Amino acid sequence: MRAEVVSIGTELLLGQIVDTNAARLGQVFAEHGADHLFRQTVGDNLARASGAIRLALSRADLVVTIGGLGPTQDDLTREAIAGALDDTLVHDPEVEAHIRSIFESRGLRWVDLNARQAMRPSCGQPIPNPNGTAPGLLCRTDGRVVVALPGPPGEFHPMVDAALRPVLHELGDGTILHSRVLRVIGMGESLIEHKLGDLMASANPTLAPYAKTGEVHLRLTARARSISEASDQIAPLEQEVRARLGAAVYALDETPLETAVLELLESRSHTLGVAESLTGGELASRLTSTPGASRVFVGGFVVYTEAQKHALLGVPTSMLSEHTAVSEPVAAAMALGARDKLGCDWAISLTGYAGPDGGDEANPVGTVYIGLAGPQGVRVARHRFLGQRSGVRTRSVQTALSMVREALLEPEPLG
Amino acid sequence: MRAEVVSIGTELLLGQIVDTNAARLGQVFAEHGADHLFRQTVGDNLARASGAIRLALSRADLVVTIGGLGPTQDDLTREAIAGALDDTLVHDPEVEAHIRSIFESRGLRWVDLNARQAMRPSCGQPIPNPNGTAPGLLCRTDGRVVVALPGPPGEFHPMVDAALRPVLHELGDGTILHSRVLRVIGMGESLIEHKLGDLMASANPTLAPYAKTGEVHLRLTARARSISEASDQIAPLEQEVRARLGAAVYALDETPLETAVLELLESRSHTLGVAESLTGGELASRLTSTPGASRVFVGGFVVYTEAQKHALLGVPTSMLSEHTAVSEPVAAAMALGARDKLGCDWAISLTGYAGPDGGDEANPVGTVYIGLAGPQGVRVARHRFLGQRSGVRTRSVQTALSMVREALLEPEPLG
Repeated sequence: MRAEVVSIGTELLLGQIVDTNAARLGQVFAEHGADHLFRQTVGDNLARASGAIRLALSRADLVVTIGGLGPTQDDLTREAIAGALDDTLVHDPEVEAHIRSIFESRGLRWVDLNARQAMRPSCGQPIPNPNGTAPGLLCRTDGRVVVALPGPPGEFHPMVDAALRPVLHELGDGTILHSRVLRVIGMGESLIEHKLGDLMASANPTLAPYAKTGEVHLRLTARARSISEASDQIAPLEQEVRARLGAAVYALDETPLETAVLELLESRSHTLGVAESLTGGELASRLTSTPGASRVFVGGFVVYTEAQKHALLGVPTSMLSEHTAVSEPVAAAMALGARDKLGCDWAISLTGYAGPDGGDEANPVGTVYIGLAGPQGVRVARHRFLGQRSGVRTRSVQTALSMVREALLEPEPLG
Repeated sequence: MRAEVVSIGTELLLGQIVDTNAARLGQVFAEHGADHLFRQTVGDNLARASGAIRLALSRADLVVTIGGLGPTQDDLTREAIAGALDDTLVHDPEVEAHIRSIFESRGLRWVDLNARQAMRPSCGQPIPNPNGTAPGLLCRTDGRVVVALPGPPGEFHPMVDAALRPVLHELGDGTILHSRVLRVIGMGESLIEHKLGDLMASANPTLAPYAKTGEVHLRLTARARSISEASDQIAPLEQEVRARLGAAVYALDETPLETAVLELLESRSHTLGVAESLTGGELASRLTSTPGASRVFVGGFVVYTEAQKHALLGVPTSMLSEHTAVSEPVAAAMALGARDKLGCDWAISLTGYAGPDGGDEANPVGTVYIGLAGPQGVRVARHRFLGQRSGVRTRSVQTALSMVREALLEPEPLG
């Protein structure tokens, strides 16, 4: 079964709002196993909206429109559907009576424009809207179905569940799509494709990579008759991917890297602290965004000047003047100083040039030294990241978290 | 001039990501006076992507594609554009050399798949991508233009400004929409509408409020033949808004609150430090996201345990046990301790319950104490924020920044 979305609203095309409703329909279609090949967005214009619905009907079994069901003259979806179906609009007195009763119960003044919401194509039936005045529409014609839903998310979402899902179930072949995401750190998209290319040709379950900032997500998706059947299909593919990528797979589904690192530390009853220069608190902020972080994360320093690196972390001033603050020895001294001052098992330090200013020939903008002090000693890694200030900072944080994880997983002692 | 967007990516149709890039193009089209009548979204499928571009070319002067420019077999936009234009792909050795140099400078392993990114339709020219490996494409044919931009927002946005805006300017009819945003802190949307309601009826320039987390943005927009003409139309409206809202207007356009606070401090040659508990580094991270922050911001502490509040900031253990860490005296002691240890003019402290756990009857989840120590003494404000962990943290940071600003602007000395 093929489903298509037509989002209707000039505010979408002007970029005044982002079409989160359409993204939600994509998820719901996938859950019900509907193929979703196209989405169209048009403004509040009768001819164009009608044309978009007609085009969608030429290639989909189910067309879902979003928006344009309100009372104003801009709200043209009823007319557009009637036009696309070569149908005419009729007045539904029951709907008008219902809308009038809502106005009465809220003590609002009735204006005749509201009666527009009681119009519908003759082939359609109203879909109840418990959270607003405009009903949705369900039109069946020649084996195809058009469902019209209102745009305000508070009205839209409940109607998706109450009215659209039953239609998807009825039109579907009884299959669903179910996905699992493997989150991968420390390997680029092209290297992953090099290692997994043959698996990506699989038709069911499918395997697809998505590049994120500093990591890659692998989505394994199966079409099956139930979630448990889909899980059974995904399991051997997941096992094969894990066998090829090893420890680079750091977590599943919605678990971010900072949470995976905190869980790994907690499982060993280890604590963590930080000393940040170029990332200015972003690493600490990422770690503490996880509820319960305080069981592992004790605290940290943001040392944004040379004087603070010396005063708070005990980095020798001679070292700072000899090597500059962006150097391997200073990164090591920062990590050791933070571990000492905070009394934690592990401390990570970051010093570098986030840009746009700073840097020199040996260490241009984007150069970052990451230090990691642990029970057995300290190590420092040097990286060079491209991109703007915020990208350099985020990649630095991501790499620092990955470094802690690698140190915890390796059999060799740190030092 | 008509412009159309074709967003390409199966992850969009599956609802795994929301198409914020397309919304941004809508804004940019409007700024350049381009008519934007349709948007299409297709998956990673050559025939459908090519068909969508062909349809867009049949009704628009400018077609902008988003996504599908990466190295993997899913990335088909180059082929789709060539197909829609009846053109063939050629290999661009300069582009390949450039991509190889990026891999080399990052110390990454080259795999041949990356050479896909050096292919382009023969009528096209590459658009430089300073933040990634995949170049964009600019193809001119029969008086129409196709621009292809990569999907990752960090690569997409700079290329919109550097490469797409000049094309829009060249194709445009001479009118533009120009906006100025007044950023307002410390006043809710309804109070602002109460004060400015009559001005919001204006047709050109227009005035519209947008609620953001912890602040409100007022957008003043004029349509004119040039930016300077539009600015002249906006100026008297801006003056009237400022006269009514006073110091609540804290900055213009893209200047965030942290930057406005840093500029205010710098103008007085004052320095700032922080001591964060519940916000866990988010305030420091916000401040240091501003280039040049080091001229004002010296550093800070993330004190996520009672022990660290005592050890790093000198908060007396008796005070912690008597009042708990979430209390007015502890917030004051944290701010004074941070100012002392960091040797800065101002220090701000945050302690509270971000949730989901923690809190008690007197100080439930969402309770936050913000301390501000300055040249004349210390003050503490208590707030209660609703919402989830991340919302409580962000509102706390926003309020802390606003507190510094108010202290700097007031005629009375702090204390």
